Amino acid sequence: MAKLGRPRAKGPSESGRSTEEDILLAAAKLFTEIGYGSTSTHRLADEAGLSQATMYHYFAGKKDVLLALLLETVRPSVTFAQAVVPRPEPTAARIWALCAYDARLLLSGRHNVGALYLVPELSDDHFTPFHAERKKLYIAYRKLVGEALGLGAREAHPLASAAFGLVESVILRRRTEGRLPQSTPPLIADSALRILGLDPVTHSAGDALVEEIGAELPVD
Amino acid sequence: MAKLGRPRAKGPSESGRSTEEDILLAAAKLFTEIGYGSTSTHRLADEAGLSQATMYHYFAGKKDVLLALLLETVRPSVTFAQAVVPRPEPTAARIWALCAYDARLLLSGRHNVGALYLVPELSDDHFTPFHAERKKLYIAYRKLVGEALGLGAREAHPLASAAFGLVESVILRRRTEGRLPQSTPPLIADSALRILGLDPVTHSAGDALVEEIGAELPVD
Repeated sequence: MAKLGRPRAKGPSESGRSTEEDILLAAAKLFTEIGYGSTSTHRLADEAGLSQATMYHYFAGKKDVLLALLLETVRPSVTFAQAVVPRPEPTAARIWALCAYDARLLLSGRHNVGALYLVPELSDDHFTPFHAERKKLYIAYRKLVGEALGLGAREAHPLASAAFGLVESVILRRRTEGRLPQSTPPLIADSALRILGLDPVTHSAGDALVEEIGAELPVD
Repeated sequence: MAKLGRPRAKGPSESGRSTEEDILLAAAKLFTEIGYGSTSTHRLADEAGLSQATMYHYFAGKKDVLLALLLETVRPSVTFAQAVVPRPEPTAARIWALCAYDARLLLSGRHNVGALYLVPELSDDHFTPFHAERKKLYIAYRKLVGEALGLGAREAHPLASAAFGLVESVILRRRTEGRLPQSTPPLIADSALRILGLDPVTHSAGDALVEEIGAELPVD
């Protein structure tokens, strides 16, 4: 994934995006609309408005493009989780903020990239870095749930896993319901606290914490 | 999907399953392990131990096989929902039973067929019957949630959709966590009631209702 300022084969992007971002956006569209397996590198380069040679300059192959896309669905939440876990606010507020942020991330972007979590190709070792990041994120959920309920990792697992699953369920819902309303992430965060039997957090307090951590969501 | 007793090209199944079931099991394996797009009808017939001609006697094509598989993940829950909605038990108990049954169905079977909910090919009109059944199921959830909370369909939607998503999240979890414990469906059902702010239902009462409706889950 070199990032030298090499000129584009077909001239500069009209989008204001970098070449790498053009490739990722084209891949998000094709992988979710026609499928990862059915997308050739030829078609991918074409959709991105590049020659295959230029594309190979940025990504060693289709697998690398998928890996980069998948990491974008999870890394910002890992960064957020690592910032929120040690904060002094009450645990319920921190759990609320993490769920709301994570759900917003999964609902962001023009294409439902999370749908690729279920493609069989993800069993390939090439995607270990994605699985490792997603596990880090899950472990942050479990840590916070354990802290809130006074449970060890093993005991916290079933509830943490239910809350984590609830957040990720927006991937399935987005496929069925289309664009979900902006009220969905806070409702998901409220619901997670209910599952855990924790007292509710006001949305203004939760949102303030998200903002204070200052994490930005990708916009397209 | 004719079901005449035509002899198998390669002799009787050793499994005790019908030829149609052999095809569906082979498809569930290949579609989830190598992908729907990457599975040829040739390979599918081969995996089922049949000639392509015999397979075409049962299914007009790969799409029909996928449709049949998808319907198996939702029809039993629709039947269950239609039986549970008009029952005299308290609404919370009926919601609990529906969530537990539906989660068990999605966790049943050797292969995680629900993973196919996200394949892009499902936008094809051919799969309208599946989307229609899944919508029927969702409408039953929404009806029960509306009844429990005294809300109309529109108002009940966000919470019903969160509960429905929570149940379907077992599809994503199964992919990550592997075989989920038998305690998962009741925990999902408990969690759904919590999301809705309803009083808990004892597992014995919930299980008794599931059993009374007498719906059987497919076993493999």
